[in-house]
Amino acid sequence: MRLTSCGVIVEYNPFHNGHKYHLEQAKKKSQADVLIAIMSGNFLQRGEPAIIDKWHRAEVALKHGVDLVIELPFAYAVQSADYFAKGGVKLLQSLHVDALCFGTDTTKSLDYSGFGKEYVEKETLINLRYQELKNNGQSYPQQMTQIYRELLPSVPLDFSSPNHILGMAYAKENARYNTPMSLIPINREGSGYHEEGIQDQTFSSATGIRKQALENNLSSISHTLPKESLADLNQMLLHSWEDYWPLLKYQLLSHSTNELAKTYQLTEGIEYRLKECAKKARNMSEFIEMVKTKRYTWARLQRLATYLLLNVTQEEIEQVWNQSYLRVLGFNEIGRRYLKQEKNRSELPIITKISQKNESQLSLDIRAGQIYQLIEKDIASEQDYYRSPIYLREEC
Amino acid sequence: MRLTSCGVIVEYNPFHNGHKYHLEQAKKKSQADVLIAIMSGNFLQRGEPAIIDKWHRAEVALKHGVDLVIELPFAYAVQSADYFAKGGVKLLQSLHVDALCFGTDTTKSLDYSGFGKEYVEKETLINLRYQELKNNGQSYPQQMTQIYRELLPSVPLDFSSPNHILGMAYAKENARYNTPMSLIPINREGSGYHEEGIQDQTFSSATGIRKQALENNLSSISHTLPKESLADLNQMLLHSWEDYWPLLKYQLLSHSTNELAKTYQLTEGIEYRLKECAKKARNMSEFIEMVKTKRYTWARLQRLATYLLLNVTQEEIEQVWNQSYLRVLGFNEIGRRYLKQEKNRSELPIITKISQKNESQLSLDIRAGQIYQLIEKDIASEQDYYRSPIYLREEC
Repeated sequence: MRLTSCGVIVEYNPFHNGHKYHLEQAKKKSQADVLIAIMSGNFLQRGEPAIIDKWHRAEVALKHGVDLVIELPFAYAVQSADYFAKGGVKLLQSLHVDALCFGTDTTKSLDYSGFGKEYVEKETLINLRYQELKNNGQSYPQQMTQIYRELLPSVPLDFSSPNHILGMAYAKENARYNTPMSLIPINREGSGYHEEGIQDQTFSSATGIRKQALENNLSSISHTLPKESLADLNQMLLHSWEDYWPLLKYQLLSHSTNELAKTYQLTEGIEYRLKECAKKARNMSEFIEMVKTKRYTWARLQRLATYLLLNVTQEEIEQVWNQSYLRVLGFNEIGRRYLKQEKNRSELPIITKISQKNESQLSLDIRAGQIYQLIEKDIASEQDYYRSPIYLREEC
Repeated sequence: MRLTSCGVIVEYNPFHNGHKYHLEQAKKKSQADVLIAIMSGNFLQRGEPAIIDKWHRAEVALKHGVDLVIELPFAYAVQSADYFAKGGVKLLQSLHVDALCFGTDTTKSLDYSGFGKEYVEKETLINLRYQELKNNGQSYPQQMTQIYRELLPSVPLDFSSPNHILGMAYAKENARYNTPMSLIPINREGSGYHEEGIQDQTFSSATGIRKQALENNLSSISHTLPKESLADLNQMLLHSWEDYWPLLKYQLLSHSTNELAKTYQLTEGIEYRLKECAKKARNMSEFIEMVKTKRYTWARLQRLATYLLLNVTQEEIEQVWNQSYLRVLGFNEIGRRYLKQEKNRSELPIITKISQKNESQLSLDIRAGQIYQLIEKDIASEQDYYRSPIYLREEC
């Protein structure tokens, strides 16, 4: 009998009780046999290093309900919501996943599937209108608000909720496929996405948790995390942008503006500004503050900084877009059976080990892992070469 | 009346009593009015960062007999003996210096001027013979020994003494000019060039002094240094290759072998070897040990590492060779008078301040300074922009 599946597209930075609740709801509402997580690797959507590496985050997810963890390639993960969603949905579609479950924290109610369909139908018009507004000096959310009001007046607008924006992006992508997944939004409980304060509650935002963890204040967040996450945060070297700041600064100072301009998305002369500010800034947050403008939001600048840090080119990104793959980070018995079921049906190659055959295809993810590990005191274990997927066997 | 001058080509890493003795002898033997030092900047001939920056080293030199300090541009300083000598002699010649005084520690006696003349006469033959032997698997000194035996049989050979090799290089370069400087070799007293042990004596090698200073063992070397050098070593952050190792490793891992191969002198596929070893090495000395072969000596590899660290291209080096300049780091009253005397006669522009007009000409030296300063904890003061030459006025 064919196993049914439900997908989630996640970062788990780090995995907390809110994620656990989300997985429980996904299982319950989808009634699927298998839960599949498409998870960002060592660098994340907002252009940040993950606080803990992808293997440890995958393992905690497997211990709390996920049956199969696939890495969202860097070329999709470190992107604005639309491209992030494009990658996540593409990978789930290639695995013939039946449902996509995602968190949302908007108070507006939206038929996501209906919205996705309508958007795709009107897409040409929307894109034309965007080209007209593109350089009017407004921010992207402002421009989008205007376009939606004009062309999709029935859609309730809420650009203040990153999860809702992602949900809409999933819906749009999903609607492009012949057999779209059924969409299952789940209302988030507890803290808002960006809230930094930790209240006396079981749920807390990942942002708040990271802040406390980086400040060595684990006792204040211990009740918001499963014990495995807490143990990782306690025992491992935690990664934050500040650790990579000396390398980014060096990269900016050791290359000419001409060389820097070859980096992915480094356009409009921003390389001059970045180089100048790199000389003056004492740390990463000071640097981003200095560079920030209305056009360049914090997340966008952090993504640019990540592309610079990893020396990413347009060609490398497009290579992954044109030839994607399913990099397996871990599974349990049921996840393993699902992979077996899909092995010959998947449109994308399933990769469980780096080999001479696939290392150039995965070169961007491999480089991300090597640079991610540079801040370790000693030679850190490889993130990609010689690693096999985690196989979590059921405990007797 | 025209001031007469004597030049020295130096690194002062750091300035010690041996250097002081050398300056006293230079003054005495040349009877010149002015002592001019052509000094490497923040990176040195053997491909190392200077233990202390160029400004502090220049100041100590001015306090101990030098009247004028000119920076040897990076493009000449971080080079094998022949190119190092080419740069030093070129700068002195453009200032119409009358004599060149240098240390030598060979026991063989050599008429340096005569040797230089003979070498230049036979140069075409020597170069042809070198092209024949170039890829025979022998080391450069072995090849040179054979060539000298064949073509310059009267020259006593001693390739074990770096100072003697430099002396011969000065002599060869000097002989190319219409009015060669008179050459004044001075026998070094005390420790050999590379000796690491510090004996109970007034002279000690710079290598030994650096080793003790980096190990925080200043008391053992205090008698070998003037008080100003000792104070600098005591108070300043000392720079060594190990501090830059994380940046070099990052540079090697974040760039493809194709990109790395654009670096100056990175030929013969050594980029593959460097990249592989960078993954495994835990520090700089381990890295060089891993990469070292018969063809690639320690100094040559350190120079390659410096070119990589600073992201230097062939074009940048050649630009400086074609358009050299006299960057003034410091002077006293007599040095200032000499500069004034030569200002309109010098073939090379005299630069006392970085301006929009000259910053692209000096870009390699400026970048060297910026990267040199990256290991400072806080934002370090500029090495080049906004700096004026040191003007050491006589104390009343």
